[in-house]
Amino acid sequence: MTIPVTRRRENTRARLLDAAAQVFAEVGLEGASVEAICERAGFTRGAFYSNFDSKDELFLQLAAAVAEQRITTVRARIDEFVKSGTLSADADPAELVQRVMDSGEDDRLSVLLMSEIRIHALRDATFAAAYLAQESALVSSIEGIIQGIVDSGLFALRVQVPAAAQILTVQWEGCMARGVIAGYDGEQLHRVGAEALARVVELILAPAVPPVGEKRPSA
Amino acid sequence: MTIPVTRRRENTRARLLDAAAQVFAEVGLEGASVEAICERAGFTRGAFYSNFDSKDELFLQLAAAVAEQRITTVRARIDEFVKSGTLSADADPAELVQRVMDSGEDDRLSVLLMSEIRIHALRDATFAAAYLAQESALVSSIEGIIQGIVDSGLFALRVQVPAAAQILTVQWEGCMARGVIAGYDGEQLHRVGAEALARVVELILAPAVPPVGEKRPSA
Repeated sequence: MTIPVTRRRENTRARLLDAAAQVFAEVGLEGASVEAICERAGFTRGAFYSNFDSKDELFLQLAAAVAEQRITTVRARIDEFVKSGTLSADADPAELVQRVMDSGEDDRLSVLLMSEIRIHALRDATFAAAYLAQESALVSSIEGIIQGIVDSGLFALRVQVPAAAQILTVQWEGCMARGVIAGYDGEQLHRVGAEALARVVELILAPAVPPVGEKRPSA
Repeated sequence: MTIPVTRRRENTRARLLDAAAQVFAEVGLEGASVEAICERAGFTRGAFYSNFDSKDELFLQLAAAVAEQRITTVRARIDEFVKSGTLSADADPAELVQRVMDSGEDDRLSVLLMSEIRIHALRDATFAAAYLAQESALVSSIEGIIQGIVDSGLFALRVQVPAAAQILTVQWEGCMARGVIAGYDGEQLHRVGAEALARVVELILAPAVPPVGEKRPSA
């Protein structure tokens, strides 16, 4: 009977993560107690600690889940565009980025979550190590997506793939955090995030066939 | 006797800002009480409140002072390079950025201060407004520096000046915050910050005279 137990365990985890997201939205990371999360999810502290070592671990997992969902959406959208021929070398990069990033969801919660996780990492060395490991995994996923686009031969880059992934990640995060500080709603936030990415995408894109005499990075 | 009074007042402000930086380094923004800052500076609370409305205002002023000092150093360094002919179109951008950003100071304190001020702005709407106003002033200063370089005719940009200023600011801040989380010392932090800027500078720079057929943004 391994499968039902695993499934129940997965269900418990998912409900705890969901409850944590709700409590976080209401009171922030500091204010979100394990008790409040358990109460919201309808579980005991025992159920909590059989799934997560600590509140810190829960929130890192939540941030990872949110980021992974976003990455999966972006990857699926790009695959779809490649198949349908939308992602062609003469397409407008800014418009493509808008469409790729348009998940239809409100990003405010995830931006606040990312920001609070980053704050916590700035203040706590143990948490910082876990945060950096998780961020590496995220940047690797983004590198994979970019490498896929380069491999399609439709676009070439003026920088190497890891640098492109890092610049895009930093730019997106920085602009989204600023948008939250400015009090933007979900739609405005989406717009500034996509605009920031589009500006950088235009800078890092090179024509697939470089003009004579133009140096091309060995990617 | 206006001048001596103003001078004494300036001196009091400077000593309070200096004490605030020291206390901040020891206990962070939350932990730095007005009392502790006054005690360190050797002033009464009366002296504090005749110079600053609140602890928030003091720390915004401190962040502004730190940023202004950095901007002044960068501007002076660039002027010097322009005069000495170091800033020529065939110079290596990465090396120039390294030399322009090398203030000889440890940036860790200012990065932590910037990060904590940003956190506070994410959490407090009133503070957010003051933070955004101050950030606009900072970005304007950076735009001024970039415009000066463009006006010198040595370099042209592939993006407009405000976009260049924003990308550079976000990249620097994002990479420095990551460096602090990674536990880098002052020297490592300087290196990652300068490398991040250099990568972006190389992307946004266009030759002053564009090759035939290359589109150039109407800056």
